[in-house]
Amino acid sequence: MITQYEISLPAFRRGFHLITSHLIGAIGSLPDKGLLNLFIHHTSAGLMINENADPSVRVDLNSSFDHLAPERMPFYTHVMEGDDDMPAHVKSALTGVSLTIPISGGRLKLGTWQGIFLGEFRDRGGSRRVTATIYS
Amino acid sequence: MITQYEISLPAFRRGFHLITSHLIGAIGSLPDKGLLNLFIHHTSAGLMINENADPSVRVDLNSSFDHLAPERMPFYTHVMEGDDDMPAHVKSALTGVSLTIPISGGRLKLGTWQGIFLGEFRDRGGSRRVTATIYS
Amino acid sequence: MITQYEISLPAFRRGFHLITSHLIGAIGSLPDKGLLNLFIHHTSAGLMINENADPSVRVDLNSSFDHLAPERMPFYTHVMEGDDDMPAHVKSALTGVSLTIPISGGRLKLGTWQGIFLGEFRDRGGSRRVTATIYS
Repeated sequence: MITQYEISLPAFRRGFHLITSHLIGAIGSLPDKGLLNLFIHHTSAGLMINENADPSVRVDLNSSFDHLAPERMPFYTHVMEGDDDMPAHVKSALTGVSLTIPISGGRLKLGTWQGIFLGEFRDRGGSRRVTATIYS
Repeated sequence: MITQYEISLPAFRRGFHLITSHLIGAIGSLPDKGLLNLFIHHTSAGLMINENADPSVRVDLNSSFDHLAPERMPFYTHVMEGDDDMPAHVKSALTGVSLTIPISGGRLKLGTWQGIFLGEFRDRGGSRRVTATIYS
Repeated sequence: MITQYEISLPAFRRGFHLITSHLIGAIGSLPDKGLLNLFIHHTSAGLMINENADPSVRVDLNSSFDHLAPERMPFYTHVMEGDDDMPAHVKSALTGVSLTIPISGGRLKLGTWQGIFLGEFRDRGGSRRVTATIYS
């Protein structure tokens, strides 16, 4: 059985933001066993699973991604949409735009320290759309 | 229901290449609702979703990946297959070799600006094989 | 049909480690056609598909990931759990924690040179837990 949900995320500032609760709230009840696929419909944002407990990890992940894909690299040619635009496409390539997570006992089977993060890579990305597809 | 297709991609030069139309043409009709998994059977190429409109984004993504995984790093020990070989394995690790995309209303549910890209990381990678698996 | 397995990986030292045989042994028989999803329940480790033949590739992948996410970056604020901790979270973001692989003819449909790797990003990560979910 396949169920699909369209989820709208509120606008977040540039950085990594924990969205596990928002997604679970939007999806409602999960099957006993299956898989959840999340897919974000944008090319300057991404989805990631990482540490949910200490907010300093998110801050350092953002700094690390800024370090991996800096603004104003001399070789950039796609520069008309702002300094944050081309790095955002690179960061989206690095995190990916899709996650597949096991479901077990009616719950997402995440590790104790795992949360689902939105990577918002634009300074003002606005609201973002995610499709959740559940197989059971 | 599960359907599987083997798709052969023509040889592309090093860089990121938009293959959305090629894949959709090879797959034929899609179910009303489901998921498409794409898997590339190589370790010096990758699959990525990114901006489909402005070709300058692809050029800059290629430059950025060359910057992230440069040729002739002093610590490389795997150097017998050419200067482009070890960076290709690193780039494949960064993009990944697999994508999972929702299907809705008989179409791939991609965002307006999203396209599917082959990351060809060898100078002369030749034809590449992809398996498409559809769940419905 | 959905089948799920919990797999425990033995402790490995920091680096990339080929675990294809271990996983296949733990899963047992595969269906004729389907998909295998692997999900690692940790935020300082990852899963990756890459070259299975020449061990020098794994060595260089490890060096490359150390280069991409170095220890003691001046901007790190999450520094209480050791110099290897914050880089491990960045590396996990880069590889991802989940893989989806096609199954065909009762076997994993990997390319000739493709193997499944654990990315162990802590110096002493200990045993790691993976959930395998099979759709058929």
